[in-house]
Amino acid sequence: MPGRLLNEAEIIALIRELAGEPPPGVEVPIGDDAASYHFTGGDVLATVDSIYEGVHFNLDTFHLSDVGWKAAAAGVSDIAAMGGQPSCALLSLAFAQAPTAEDVRALVSGLIEMLASCSCALVGGDVCRSGGGLALTVTVLGTPPPGGPVLRGGAGEGDIIGLTGCVGDSGAGLFILELGRDELRSRYPRLVEAHLRPRPRVEAAGLLAAAGASAMEDVSDGLAADLSHICEMSALGCEVEECLLPLGDDLRAFAGEVGEDPLRWALSGGEDYELLFTAPPDRFETACGSLLSSGIAVARLGSMNAGGARCVLLRDNGERVELRGAGYDHFT
Amino acid sequence: MPGRLLNEAEIIALIRELAGEPPPGVEVPIGDDAASYHFTGGDVLATVDSIYEGVHFNLDTFHLSDVGWKAAAAGVSDIAAMGGQPSCALLSLAFAQAPTAEDVRALVSGLIEMLASCSCALVGGDVCRSGGGLALTVTVLGTPPPGGPVLRGGAGEGDIIGLTGCVGDSGAGLFILELGRDELRSRYPRLVEAHLRPRPRVEAAGLLAAAGASAMEDVSDGLAADLSHICEMSALGCEVEECLLPLGDDLRAFAGEVGEDPLRWALSGGEDYELLFTAPPDRFETACGSLLSSGIAVARLGSMNAGGARCVLLRDNGERVELRGAGYDHFT
Repeated sequence: MPGRLLNEAEIIALIRELAGEPPPGVEVPIGDDAASYHFTGGDVLATVDSIYEGVHFNLDTFHLSDVGWKAAAAGVSDIAAMGGQPSCALLSLAFAQAPTAEDVRALVSGLIEMLASCSCALVGGDVCRSGGGLALTVTVLGTPPPGGPVLRGGAGEGDIIGLTGCVGDSGAGLFILELGRDELRSRYPRLVEAHLRPRPRVEAAGLLAAAGASAMEDVSDGLAADLSHICEMSALGCEVEECLLPLGDDLRAFAGEVGEDPLRWALSGGEDYELLFTAPPDRFETACGSLLSSGIAVARLGSMNAGGARCVLLRDNGERVELRGAGYDHFT
Repeated sequence: MPGRLLNEAEIIALIRELAGEPPPGVEVPIGDDAASYHFTGGDVLATVDSIYEGVHFNLDTFHLSDVGWKAAAAGVSDIAAMGGQPSCALLSLAFAQAPTAEDVRALVSGLIEMLASCSCALVGGDVCRSGGGLALTVTVLGTPPPGGPVLRGGAGEGDIIGLTGCVGDSGAGLFILELGRDELRSRYPRLVEAHLRPRPRVEAAGLLAAAGASAMEDVSDGLAADLSHICEMSALGCEVEECLLPLGDDLRAFAGEVGEDPLRWALSGGEDYELLFTAPPDRFETACGSLLSSGIAVARLGSMNAGGARCVLLRDNGERVELRGAGYDHFT
């Protein structure tokens, strides 16, 4: 960290400068005791996510701007998972020791870049010293879709299960970063990018809500855990087929090269930030049409059934595997 | 930490249980990707504050329930400082290692107790591992007063400066905790309590906004720094008098006993969470009447002037001291 170290007031002034002119909706921007934002409806979606150095990222593999991006992406994706649109965000930023202007600029620029990609304004926050390494907590507020938020528990028996994009890339990207082999990193940039700079599905969220998705969740803990959440909250079971899981070419190639089963990352990797959703068959067709005409890939994974919250994967070899609880847990 | 260690899902389930039945306004409570809260107006106040073990608290002097209380108090006080009323809160909770049910119960009960004291509902959050010790980030959302939020920059020339309650108790309480002398702690319980369980002035906030306070801020960084903020943002100077600063009897007695100047804690201690406000003379009288009839102590400290953001303390010995920049900065 070369360069002069900033004090707290200078860090806040720099963040305020980086946030730029407050866009419409921001009634009180950074710089007062609290921010004020004008929502056009009465209902407000709210979520918060923290990332810690040494737990969620390491600075030998993440650039500071990636850390900022990733910190914002989790909350944005949570709002998308409700079918909502992000409006504004707060950042609580904690450094182990005083940062330079370059550090703050890199970190906050990555965060603002992510937020700006979905018209979300940074309106406030907090700066302090942390107990350990770098820590970021991002709160995102948003507006629900006109028909109300799409919950995890809304799936019905016979609903089709769909997924935007591909899964497993982020988990494989993390595996590459942990291996620390630069040549792998340069040969599989899309996998690494999927982990460092995930792109939440804000546009797809609005389309899915409008098409009448019955339940939705973002793939943050891994497909297995996230499917289990929808089953539990909807008090239903589900069956998905291995052959239907959308795995990207890079993921398959990389898995083949290192002798791993790509399913491992698809089911338990997490942090893909794709949208997992359910809808009755007719609405599922509408949703797919709407996504595809916006250039968003979508796959049908299987369907919901009355199987008592059992979440089953039908493997290509005919084996039936129960997926429950295979997701990431911070304390197990 | 005796007892069985909880996993992430169990921690969330316990927090959900502790949060109880969602009160009116909560459309989607803890348990989905994001919370949803119904605000009756369009404008929403939002603030976030983090506290870290080893920086903001130590577990040898703080009970876990005090940590929870204190984490919530900062954000609630920020909403009060805008003249607003807190509505709902999100908690991002990070443990260095898996906690027991007793740990989670103590921590979250303290937080919910603080929130409940001002009818603020815990509606969501995040649980993960931290890079160092225990860390809590609390986001508080609230509704602005009918006339719009009271900002730091609204003071006018000639406005009177007022303060609810007393200042310095929290700083002296911290000093007692750091000394580690139990007999001092038991002889000055109110000072220690002021630090461990500060009580934000939510009721006073509404009364001050209704009475037409022109500027407002909570005393979080210390009176000197917080006065400076109002001066800077209002592009005015101010003069306050030492003899008018409201110092409590316990603070004076303790300062005398340990041979310290109580002004030290009043000016630079911070975390008193009293409300510092300004108002033109006629509205100041209205505000004081309104506070006093609700049993809330209020003091006149001095007045705002055209002195170019200079913030002057007139000492009892006739000396004029410039207060600027005497507050707490995490990185200096």
